[in-house]
Amino acid sequence: MANSSTESLPLLWRDDHLAILDQRLLPQEVHYIEARDYHTVTAAIRDLAVRGAPAIGIAAAYGVVLAARALGVDGPIALSQMQAALDEMEAARPTAVNLAWALRYMAQQLEQGATADELLKTALQIHQDERENNATMARHGAELIEPGSRVLTVCNTGGLATGGSGTALAVIVEAWRQERLVEAFSAETRPWFQGARLTTWELQNAGVAHRLVVDSAVPWLMKNQGIDWVIVGADRVVANGDAANKIGTYAAALAAKAHGAKTMVVIPTTTLDLNTAEGSQIPIEERSAEEITAPGGRPLAPEGTRVWNPVFDVTPAHLIDALVTERGVVLEPNREKIARLMS
Amino acid sequence: MANSSTESLPLLWRDDHLAILDQRLLPQEVHYIEARDYHTVTAAIRDLAVRGAPAIGIAAAYGVVLAARALGVDGPIALSQMQAALDEMEAARPTAVNLAWALRYMAQQLEQGATADELLKTALQIHQDERENNATMARHGAELIEPGSRVLTVCNTGGLATGGSGTALAVIVEAWRQERLVEAFSAETRPWFQGARLTTWELQNAGVAHRLVVDSAVPWLMKNQGIDWVIVGADRVVANGDAANKIGTYAAALAAKAHGAKTMVVIPTTTLDLNTAEGSQIPIEERSAEEITAPGGRPLAPEGTRVWNPVFDVTPAHLIDALVTERGVVLEPNREKIARLMS
Repeated sequence: MANSSTESLPLLWRDDHLAILDQRLLPQEVHYIEARDYHTVTAAIRDLAVRGAPAIGIAAAYGVVLAARALGVDGPIALSQMQAALDEMEAARPTAVNLAWALRYMAQQLEQGATADELLKTALQIHQDERENNATMARHGAELIEPGSRVLTVCNTGGLATGGSGTALAVIVEAWRQERLVEAFSAETRPWFQGARLTTWELQNAGVAHRLVVDSAVPWLMKNQGIDWVIVGADRVVANGDAANKIGTYAAALAAKAHGAKTMVVIPTTTLDLNTAEGSQIPIEERSAEEITAPGGRPLAPEGTRVWNPVFDVTPAHLIDALVTERGVVLEPNREKIARLMS
Repeated sequence: MANSSTESLPLLWRDDHLAILDQRLLPQEVHYIEARDYHTVTAAIRDLAVRGAPAIGIAAAYGVVLAARALGVDGPIALSQMQAALDEMEAARPTAVNLAWALRYMAQQLEQGATADELLKTALQIHQDERENNATMARHGAELIEPGSRVLTVCNTGGLATGGSGTALAVIVEAWRQERLVEAFSAETRPWFQGARLTTWELQNAGVAHRLVVDSAVPWLMKNQGIDWVIVGADRVVANGDAANKIGTYAAALAAKAHGAKTMVVIPTTTLDLNTAEGSQIPIEERSAEEITAPGGRPLAPEGTRVWNPVFDVTPAHLIDALVTERGVVLEPNREKIARLMS
């Protein structure tokens, strides 16, 4: 279905429903879930049919539209009538701040007397803004990359994760188009294998030379193949620049520092959470043991094996060399520089 | 079948054949391959039915016995008649030095006029020495661990990997018995999941409190749960103390240094290769793409995805706090200290 990463569309608004690409089946199968109510949107977010911080924010915005329509109200809708829907969707995933951001933004529209039609316009606008912001970030990020570079990314941050061309992966694709890259490496990203399943697929579609590695090979890769940049997205960047992202991001950033590579975090400013002072205050989602003990549903570990399964980690700001947003680039981010960016 | 890690026997000599526990099927299935010729031993080593540096050395020693018997010679056997068998088995895996060591030792017996019966005695002695050395190393290593410690191990280094009680895992089990451990963590160890499949199984059998983590969570684990020691085995430790071990060991040792944890490498001296000066000279086995693109045979990555799949990495000596052998412990190993240990 997709010829380039910008065309692998995770979310399609279809007048009477939201079509959600079931990313759990990719790349073997392209199947869309038809979400006709907000519960289906919640389940798709919680069960990872749609994932990626920006994409789940957009999905939730459309979920609000479905909830509003179900009320059958012609004029302005009372926020109180929508609270259950807003709460249910927000609780679906705790770490990514875009989800909370999109729901808060939709709630503000409700407070201002929005109708279901006006909520749809807002959701479509959030989606459209994401596309434009992605393109802007891609240009900003690519400029930082010297020709002849090798880069590594963790998880999936392409069109599938966002609704536009992506965050970190859009930077990589743009840098490739500008002939700045020799090769990109994708860490497979356990436990969900987003790197193996989704990032490779999007890099292949975009024609970027790439290789896949197991997560534990990242430091050895840096030592042996030379990596210039670790380029990642984030689920939440807080006021001091600490960045929560997929488990393994901290590992990659730490290894980068030890090997003279730099780390770039690429986010729309909707991923910034200025109300949280530092990374230690970010809620980190822990998920079920089965994601580790039975990859792909096939039991590997002995029955009863206990796990520690935090699916995000926090990379401290001092390990981040560049924070790339649609508003511009912050080198060596800290509280003051981020406040200035947002002022 | 096994009640403790010392009883999960990877290799059983059965008069007319070598029974090789097929570790690829564990822990779901306990199945022994009946190796009646050395080709079957070679295949079992190459295809990872038996793995772990010491275990493949012992398997090869028994393979030499099978090869010698097949010649039907009553008295001393000429080395030249055995060369094809020695060469084939040595080529099965390149990184672990125990394989080459065991075959060289058996070749020396042949040069001294050994018969098939005498070769069997030697193989049984190598196996028995391994058991005793494992027990000695376990005591040496456990002494280094302060009561109340949390430890992390990579890959599998228990009875399954050795033929005795294990190397690194035997230290962990011994430390648990001495009530020095709060908990052990096992990194799942992609691409073969030895940590998820085998180490958890052996820790469960030995009654050691443990949890499983994905490999990329190791630095975050150190930051959040506190790890005092990374305890690993090795496939080859060279003259200056650099240690080749399962991919991810370098990652864990590097992260340990950044988090104030220490790294212990536990090996019998048969894993020492004094003829190789430093780690950069160790041949690192690279294996097929399918091990990464299709874990457990189930395709995950898009067809044609290229990988970089080195299955070992090298931890430089300066990241190793203790090298534990049956001859004693070398703290902060270097060329001089290792030479002294072996003199």
